[in-house]
Amino acid sequence: MKTNLLTKALAPLALASNLVLAEDKPIIHDGEYNFLAAQHGEKWAAQDKEIDAKLAEIKKKNGDKRPNILYILIDDVSFGQMGDPKMNYVMGIKTPNLNKLSSESLNFMRMYTEPSCTPTRAAFLTGRLPVRSGIKEVKVALVGEGLPANEVTIAEVLKQAGYNTAHIGKWHQGDIEQAYPHNQGFDFAAFPLHQQVQLTVMTPESGKANNQFGYNASLRNDTFELDKKFRPFGLVTGVEATAGGKAKEVDLKPGEEWTHAHYVKMNERYQKQILEQVESLAKKDEPFFLQYWPLYPLNFVVPENPKTLNGGFMAEKLELLDTWVGELLAKLEETGEADNTIVCFMADNGLMYHYEGTSGLNQLIYRGGKTDFTEGGIRVDAFMRWPAAIKPNSYAGDIVHVSDLFTTFARLGEAKQFIPRDRIIDGIDQTSLILEGELNGRRDYVYVYQNDILRGIVKQEYKMHMPAPGMPGAAAPVFNVFRDPREEHPQIGTALWSGASFQDMAYRHMMMIKKYPHNKLGKGIPYEGIENLRPESVETVKTFMSWQPQK
Amino acid sequence: MKTNLLTKALAPLALASNLVLAEDKPIIHDGEYNFLAAQHGEKWAAQDKEIDAKLAEIKKKNGDKRPNILYILIDDVSFGQMGDPKMNYVMGIKTPNLNKLSSESLNFMRMYTEPSCTPTRAAFLTGRLPVRSGIKEVKVALVGEGLPANEVTIAEVLKQAGYNTAHIGKWHQGDIEQAYPHNQGFDFAAFPLHQQVQLTVMTPESGKANNQFGYNASLRNDTFELDKKFRPFGLVTGVEATAGGKAKEVDLKPGEEWTHAHYVKMNERYQKQILEQVESLAKKDEPFFLQYWPLYPLNFVVPENPKTLNGGFMAEKLELLDTWVGELLAKLEETGEADNTIVCFMADNGLMYHYEGTSGLNQLIYRGGKTDFTEGGIRVDAFMRWPAAIKPNSYAGDIVHVSDLFTTFARLGEAKQFIPRDRIIDGIDQTSLILEGELNGRRDYVYVYQNDILRGIVKQEYKMHMPAPGMPGAAAPVFNVFRDPREEHPQIGTALWSGASFQDMAYRHMMMIKKYPHNKLGKGIPYEGIENLRPESVETVKTFMSWQPQK
Repeated sequence: MKTNLLTKALAPLALASNLVLAEDKPIIHDGEYNFLAAQHGEKWAAQDKEIDAKLAEIKKKNGDKRPNILYILIDDVSFGQMGDPKMNYVMGIKTPNLNKLSSESLNFMRMYTEPSCTPTRAAFLTGRLPVRSGIKEVKVALVGEGLPANEVTIAEVLKQAGYNTAHIGKWHQGDIEQAYPHNQGFDFAAFPLHQQVQLTVMTPESGKANNQFGYNASLRNDTFELDKKFRPFGLVTGVEATAGGKAKEVDLKPGEEWTHAHYVKMNERYQKQILEQVESLAKKDEPFFLQYWPLYPLNFVVPENPKTLNGGFMAEKLELLDTWVGELLAKLEETGEADNTIVCFMADNGLMYHYEGTSGLNQLIYRGGKTDFTEGGIRVDAFMRWPAAIKPNSYAGDIVHVSDLFTTFARLGEAKQFIPRDRIIDGIDQTSLILEGELNGRRDYVYVYQNDILRGIVKQEYKMHMPAPGMPGAAAPVFNVFRDPREEHPQIGTALWSGASFQDMAYRHMMMIKKYPHNKLGKGIPYEGIENLRPESVETVKTFMSWQPQK
Repeated sequence: MKTNLLTKALAPLALASNLVLAEDKPIIHDGEYNFLAAQHGEKWAAQDKEIDAKLAEIKKKNGDKRPNILYILIDDVSFGQMGDPKMNYVMGIKTPNLNKLSSESLNFMRMYTEPSCTPTRAAFLTGRLPVRSGIKEVKVALVGEGLPANEVTIAEVLKQAGYNTAHIGKWHQGDIEQAYPHNQGFDFAAFPLHQQVQLTVMTPESGKANNQFGYNASLRNDTFELDKKFRPFGLVTGVEATAGGKAKEVDLKPGEEWTHAHYVKMNERYQKQILEQVESLAKKDEPFFLQYWPLYPLNFVVPENPKTLNGGFMAEKLELLDTWVGELLAKLEETGEADNTIVCFMADNGLMYHYEGTSGLNQLIYRGGKTDFTEGGIRVDAFMRWPAAIKPNSYAGDIVHVSDLFTTFARLGEAKQFIPRDRIIDGIDQTSLILEGELNGRRDYVYVYQNDILRGIVKQEYKMHMPAPGMPGAAAPVFNVFRDPREEHPQIGTALWSGASFQDMAYRHMMMIKKYPHNKLGKGIPYEGIENLRPESVETVKTFMSWQPQK
């Protein structure tokens, strides 16, 4: 009798599971999503049919053309720092173009990223938690590592479905050939090999602005210096390439020192190039997938003529970026593509708060920033505009993770069949949220990693910080992010009820890792595939290889 | 020659001063305002003529009737907690009516209050820093003190100019007869004698909700209790009165215990009464000045049916308050008074952050709350709507202090001549800001007191925390509130240039205090002028008087 009752009780669960699994080769999601699908699968399947009809209608209205996708990802800006007139006043800055974009968009009020540049970008590109592809934050010196060739990026997915693709700006996925964007699905790419520690911190001007010590030869004393290779040197700067071809470094001459002027020029070049891309891709028959990942507002030089009330050296570049986004959106209008282009704008993680105060950017609402697993590190402003389908000036309190964009863009581009079925895809298809609005999201959780360590779990309004190694789970602090956005009042006693559920969540996650083990980070010789290496770059590769273990 | 040059250079200054002083019996302002007037006096005088013409035109359009003024002041809510959809999402609350009001209003983005209830309310009522009238935070037990009779309130000023006046809700200006609102310019007043420590903390339900210990007899053990008068007892609760008459306590019967149900009833009563006031005052020929100072969101009982995402015991009341403000604004529409009524809505100071986390309200952006002199204590959301004259959905980054409303309302009500000329009035006439918008403010500073101690000076984007007693001025931390809203990164070295200017500001302030010494706090026997004192209230007065020094 008891068994019969249980079997009966479990029947709907089995049904729901079957529905999810009934798709031809379903996408493999994490345990937590499956747990939700078991609760909502029937409803979601029915809704998906309506959504397919809606998408077909939108496409028909647009002359049978699928939407373009423009994904703008900026660097190190915290939630609230853009798109809200009142918060503009708090900070003494003006972002009128972003405020306008926000008012024309669906605003994701709980967009979670990873806590740092490389991981967030990898999560978007692969639709997977970066830990699954072996990805950690890529440091500025040579690493001989990067995004593995066998990861399938959103560019590859959309490319296979017939999209034209291009990447302009920051990349930060490693210094090996297989990791370069033109080898990861982009028809064209213009990008710096490394990141802003090289490009804006390691400049003599940043030294003179007191934001960096001891790098530039002209600003230090080397009396006791035995090791002449301690400071990174000879790094490749900006390169350009087309799919399948070799990369070519632009701008810097052999022997020339990288300066702030070069950084400014690089930023201006990318802005020019993104406008050119829109112009040329708009003329083609196929839709486009375009990534613009600016390097600003990261900047470590005091502005010459600060015009912001704030005056800080990053705040000023945030205002400049606002102007540039305005230009880009105007270019979309001008080419007639605005109505059928999905513009998704967001930051990759919280501010670089190590320069809080002087940079002009501050934590504002959530505690922490880049590198932290507190909300300040992983909550960002995110707007999605698509005049043909998205309700302007709308908000969604549903949880979204940056990896969801992978799966969602794939569906919107009719490319879902190219998402690999042999690995876990963390990205949830959130098309329902985008088309049907708030309360139609399909995620209420996030696993928060710092590199390869699980540091927190977000579920609904609760967030558990994982207990320190050796500590019993009951000692793990749980926070209510609505009541306590800065995660300063841990509920250890009062949220004990949640401990078991959080532990189940961790278990569901770990079980799936056991079943689908992590991929290995790509490895190789740095700078392969660059055809015009400067002598100093050849030298730095030689230095790097000199201390690698023999194979 | 040198002298001549100096004389010449000082001439425009003298001229500007003359202009300011040329008015018939000018209002006496603080030194810092005079310093600004010397720099801008001519421009301001010219602008004032234009403004007078504009006001005359608005009045003409309104059938020659001056505007009504409805001043809604709520208790202990921090900047950003109301009126911004995005911040609503951060906190998991909904304030749609306040968001709408904000979008129809001029939003004061730098509205400064005093750090606590009594001082902020006194500053508004008198147009003066509370220290000048001897006012400090009035504690919950008997004090025999309050707002002195010889202070001139905005109600008295507007009353003299022919306004009908009424006060509904929190008052908190003392327990002596001269301090009661119906003796300070209001035709009618319904108010609690004390404040929420009595009304919502000292209840058995608050004890059971674990928000208060050891007050209620039913919830404690009195084994070692010698002093039976340690806990405040027999306090008068809500009273009502008309001008010149005696106050009458309502609701509570002799011997009855004050409970949460009484608090709820009191709040609901005030909401009902404010609607009745609008209804009856709208029918009169004269314009009205109406104060609604709700007691919510202060509340210490867990909601029975929390419907907010946030769920906290104050967050829930903030949502209720939002609904109530919606009702009140609807009533204004219904009576046909909306277009010509200045609705000013704001909080009196930052949140009671001692209950952060559990209450559901949090510091959000600025550090600190009620009682603090950091921005979290003294920056609040403030909206002013006046369809006949104020541009909707506008913002002003200019600094405003709550005392400015006194002088501004007086001008808008054509009552400026009734502002006393024998004392310092800190409130600046900000009519220019209200009619002409941002950048037309006439204040760029605030002196920040905690009770009678000057603890900080705000000037433009800078804020100095006064050095600890004995510390040299050069050690005083200075903060840039745009770059560092939480005042966490003191600029001691890098803002040394400002030290001299801040010291000059303090000196200009102190010089004027020397010339116009502070008034003395009103004194008297508690509860005089209440005609139906309960026996326990008579007893508590007797207890209080028993330990007063003989006259």
